[in-house]
Amino acid sequence: MGKPAKAKRGIPSKVEDFNAWYPFIVEAAELVDKRYPIKGMDVWRPYGWKTMRQIDALTHQEMEQTGHEEVNFPLLIPEDLLEKENALVARLKRAREEGVDPDELRDEDDAGFKKEVYWVKHAGENELDIPMFLRPTSETAMYTMFPLWIRSHKDLPLKVYQMVNTFRYETKQTRSFIRVREIHFFEAHTAHVDEADATRQIHQDLEIVDRLMDKLCLPIIKAKRPVWDTFPGAHYTIGIDAVMPNGRTLQVASCHHYLDQWAKAFDITYENLDAKQQHVHQTTYGMSERLLGAVVGMHGDDSGLIMPPDIAPWQVVICPMIRKNSEVDTVSVSMSVADKLRKGGLRVHVDDRDLHPGQKYYDWEIKGVPLRLDIGPRDVEQGTAFAAKRTGGKQPIPMDTILQSVRDVLDEISDVLRARSLQHMGNVIQPLPKFVETNGEWTMIGEIQEGHIYEFPFDGTDVHAEVIERTTGLTFLGDATDEFEQEQPCHMSGKPTKRRVLLAKTY
Amino acid sequence: MGKPAKAKRGIPSKVEDFNAWYPFIVEAAELVDKRYPIKGMDVWRPYGWKTMRQIDALTHQEMEQTGHEEVNFPLLIPEDLLEKENALVARLKRAREEGVDPDELRDEDDAGFKKEVYWVKHAGENELDIPMFLRPTSETAMYTMFPLWIRSHKDLPLKVYQMVNTFRYETKQTRSFIRVREIHFFEAHTAHVDEADATRQIHQDLEIVDRLMDKLCLPIIKAKRPVWDTFPGAHYTIGIDAVMPNGRTLQVASCHHYLDQWAKAFDITYENLDAKQQHVHQTTYGMSERLLGAVVGMHGDDSGLIMPPDIAPWQVVICPMIRKNSEVDTVSVSMSVADKLRKGGLRVHVDDRDLHPGQKYYDWEIKGVPLRLDIGPRDVEQGTAFAAKRTGGKQPIPMDTILQSVRDVLDEISDVLRARSLQHMGNVIQPLPKFVETNGEWTMIGEIQEGHIYEFPFDGTDVHAEVIERTTGLTFLGDATDEFEQEQPCHMSGKPTKRRVLLAKTY
Repeated sequence: MGKPAKAKRGIPSKVEDFNAWYPFIVEAAELVDKRYPIKGMDVWRPYGWKTMRQIDALTHQEMEQTGHEEVNFPLLIPEDLLEKENALVARLKRAREEGVDPDELRDEDDAGFKKEVYWVKHAGENELDIPMFLRPTSETAMYTMFPLWIRSHKDLPLKVYQMVNTFRYETKQTRSFIRVREIHFFEAHTAHVDEADATRQIHQDLEIVDRLMDKLCLPIIKAKRPVWDTFPGAHYTIGIDAVMPNGRTLQVASCHHYLDQWAKAFDITYENLDAKQQHVHQTTYGMSERLLGAVVGMHGDDSGLIMPPDIAPWQVVICPMIRKNSEVDTVSVSMSVADKLRKGGLRVHVDDRDLHPGQKYYDWEIKGVPLRLDIGPRDVEQGTAFAAKRTGGKQPIPMDTILQSVRDVLDEISDVLRARSLQHMGNVIQPLPKFVETNGEWTMIGEIQEGHIYEFPFDGTDVHAEVIERTTGLTFLGDATDEFEQEQPCHMSGKPTKRRVLLAKTY
Repeated sequence: MGKPAKAKRGIPSKVEDFNAWYPFIVEAAELVDKRYPIKGMDVWRPYGWKTMRQIDALTHQEMEQTGHEEVNFPLLIPEDLLEKENALVARLKRAREEGVDPDELRDEDDAGFKKEVYWVKHAGENELDIPMFLRPTSETAMYTMFPLWIRSHKDLPLKVYQMVNTFRYETKQTRSFIRVREIHFFEAHTAHVDEADATRQIHQDLEIVDRLMDKLCLPIIKAKRPVWDTFPGAHYTIGIDAVMPNGRTLQVASCHHYLDQWAKAFDITYENLDAKQQHVHQTTYGMSERLLGAVVGMHGDDSGLIMPPDIAPWQVVICPMIRKNSEVDTVSVSMSVADKLRKGGLRVHVDDRDLHPGQKYYDWEIKGVPLRLDIGPRDVEQGTAFAAKRTGGKQPIPMDTILQSVRDVLDEISDVLRARSLQHMGNVIQPLPKFVETNGEWTMIGEIQEGHIYEFPFDGTDVHAEVIERTTGLTFLGDATDEFEQEQPCHMSGKPTKRRVLLAKTY
C-alpha cells in the first residue's frame, strides 16, 4: 500500500510472533490501556470502546428483532443466594458420576463458584452480616426474581438480556479481551413452558450468532461440548469458537439448555392451561468482549488492525491533500463528500490535521479503518477520489456516484475478510491421524502439528476420548453442529456415525 | 379522561401523600423491582431501563456535539491510589479551616471516602495484598492514567466521559433513583491548559444541563454551593437542583472546578508553548439516575407516570378498537399508521392485545405514555384517529396529516409539562422572612412553611449563614447563577448585593 518506511516500525510480525503482535497492537491502536494498576483490568480508550459499542449495537438489534427485553440487575449477589446454585451444581455432578437421575439425589454443598469470585465482606468501617460477591454471571441474581415475574403460561416465554460487566478472579495469564478479570459481557436468559420451546430458543440463538459472526467476518465452529465440559447446571452447552491465527480456538459465545434444573432449584413455576403448577425450562446465551479479541486477532496484519466495515467506528476516513499553490479547497470538498456519505448512513471522519500524509496513513492503518479516501487538487479536477482499501488495492472512484461506490467497496472489503478467515479455517482444520489398538494400548499413527485443529468421526466412549486428549495434548471441542454428510466409521470404535468431533488447543 | 372506575385503584394520592405515591408508582409502572434482596439495589425492569437509556442517549448526543470522547474505566480501585486523594482532601480542608494557602500545607491522611465505599479484600479463597474498593466516582482511577495520556499542550483539552455504575454504602433511607447504593452514573472529566479554559468548560456544562433539562421538561436551580458544601478537592461546585412536588430539592447534577489541585496531587502536567512543565486545570460534570427520579416525581399524577415525549420509550401507543360485526380491519390500519410514524422517527407501539380497552388505557396511563391513539371502525371511516393526551384532553386528528399532527400534539404535551413544573417552581420559591438582631440575638419575623424554597439577597458571613440554617432548619443551596437583576440589601448585613441565595429542604 505504499506505506512510508516507518509505517511498520516497532510492530512485531504477526505471522512470526502472534503472542507479541497481539498485546502490542491492542495498545498501539489505542483500543485499551493496560497500564491501569490492576492486572487483567484494562482501561477502554475511546477507539476501543467505540468499536465494542458497535458490536453491542448489532447485538441490541438482534435482541430487539427476536423479542428479548433489556434489563439491568445489581452487580452484587448475597452469598446465601449462591447456596441454591451450589447445591444444584453438586447434585448434577454427582448424578453424572454415579449415572443416576439427578432428581433422586439430595442437594449438597459445593464450593466451585466461590473460588472464582471477588468478595465484598466490608462496607465503610463495617463487616457485613452476609458477604456478597461481584457477579461472575447472573443466573443466581435473575432466578431469584423470576418466580416473582412468572405466574402463568401467559408470562412465557420470558426473554430478557443485559449487557453488564462481570468479574472473575482469574489466576491464569491475562490477555486483553481474551482473558480479563473485568469482562464486558452480554447474557440473555429465557424461560419457557417446556423443553421443546427452550430447544427452539437455542436454535434461535445459533441463528443470531451466525448473523453476528457474518458481520464480524469470522467463520465459527459450533460444537456441543462433551459432558465433562458442560456448564455447571446445564443439560447441554453449545460452545461457539472462533479460530485464531495460531490455530488456537477462542470460545466467543455459548448457549446453555438448562431443562427445568434451575427452575427446580429456584422454584420457578407457572400455572399451565390445566391450572397446575409446572416448572419452567430455561436457556441462556452469553457473549463477551472476546468477540473483539477474535476480530483483532484474525483480521489484523503487520500494519495494524483491520476493522470489518460493520463494526468500524469510522468506516471511511477522508484525507484532503493540501498542495501549496493550488486554489482547490480540498478540505471543503472532503467535508461535502463526508456529508453525503453520512447522510447515506456511513460513519465517516475527515482528517484535516496539518500533518504529513504518511503520518496520517500510518495512524489510520494501525487503527484498521477499512477505507481511506484521499482527495487532492487533481482528484477534484478529475471528479474522483482516490480509494485505498485497508485490505489492499487502490483505485480512483467517481465523485458523482460516491455513496454507492463506497458502499460497494466496503462490501468488497467485508468479503475479502470473510474469504481470508474462511480460508484460514479451512487450512487449519485437518483430519486426525489414525489410532490403532494393540493389546489394549492405543498408538497414534502420525503427529499432531502446532497450529492445527483436528476433526474426526467419533462415536466412542469416554475412555476413548481420554486416550485422544492425553495422546494429542488437545481438547475436545465437542460434536460440531455441522455433522458429516454421510456416516463414517468412528475413529476409535469403528461404529458408523455422522458425529463430527473437533479437537483443538483452546484459549 | 374517562377512566374506568378501577383505573386509580390502589394508587396513593400524590398531593396528599407523595411519600407513599412515589415508591408505589415506580413499581406499579414497572420501572424497577425493589424486591431484590439487597436494600438500595433495585432491578431495572425493561420499561425503566428503556427510559433511562433514552435519557442516556440525549447525554451521548450532547457529549458528541461538545467533543467529549467516551471511555470505560475499571470498577475496582486499589486502596493505595486513594491515599493521594485523601491527602489532597485533608489538606484543602485544613487550609480552609485555617484560612491559609493549601500549597503551604503538607498532605495528611483523611478517612473521609473510606467510610462510604464497599471493600473488596478477598478474591476466591485468598486475602488480597492491597484491598480494593468499588468506585464511588472515578477521579482516582482516571487521574492515575491522565499523566500517561497528557504530554503537551497539543493533548489538551482532554475531554472524556463514561456511563457506569457507582457504589455508595448508603446508611440513610434508600429511595429508587433518588438514594440508592448502586447508582447509574454519568461523569465527564476534562483537563485544560489553564483556569480560564477550565472555566469555559464549566459554562459549557451548564449549557448542556439546560438543554437536557428542557427535554425532561424540568426547570432547575443552578447554585454555586457554599464553601462548606463544596465537593472535596474542588475549588467550587455548582449544584443543579430539580424541585420536587413536596418542595424539596433534588440535586440531579453537579459541576466541579478543580483548578490544578488534583493535578498537583496526581502529578498531571503538560509541556507548554515555552517547553515548560505545567499542571493542568481540571473539571468534572456528573449526573445520575436521579434525573429519572425527578421526572417521575414532578410529572406524574394519580393515574401514574407522565413521560416527557423526548424520553418516552413509547411516545405513541395505538389501540385498535375491535368491534364485532365490523368489517374494518382496525389492526392493519393501526399497523400502517405506526409504520408511518416510525418512519418519521417516532417511537410507537401498537397494543393489539385481546383485552378490554379500559384495561389497556389503565396500563398505558400508569406507564405515562404521552399520547394514545384509538382507532375504531368509525374513525377509519371518518379518516381520523382519536387522540388522548396523557396530560388531559382528547381530539380526533386527521389521518392524512397524521405524522405532523402527532408531532404537534407531542410538542404541546411537552409544553404543558414544562409550564406545569415551572408554575410549581414559581409557587414554591418564596422570599425568606425577615431576620432582626437584638443584642446580638437574631430572630426570624414570620414562619418557615413546609414545602417552600426561600430566596433572599445575601452577602453576610458564615455566622449569618449558620444562624439562618439553624433557625429555619433548611439548607443553603448556595448562590443562584441567576442573580437578582438589581442590587438589594443583604438579608442579614444590609450590604447591597445581587447575590441571590436559595434555601431549601434537600433530598
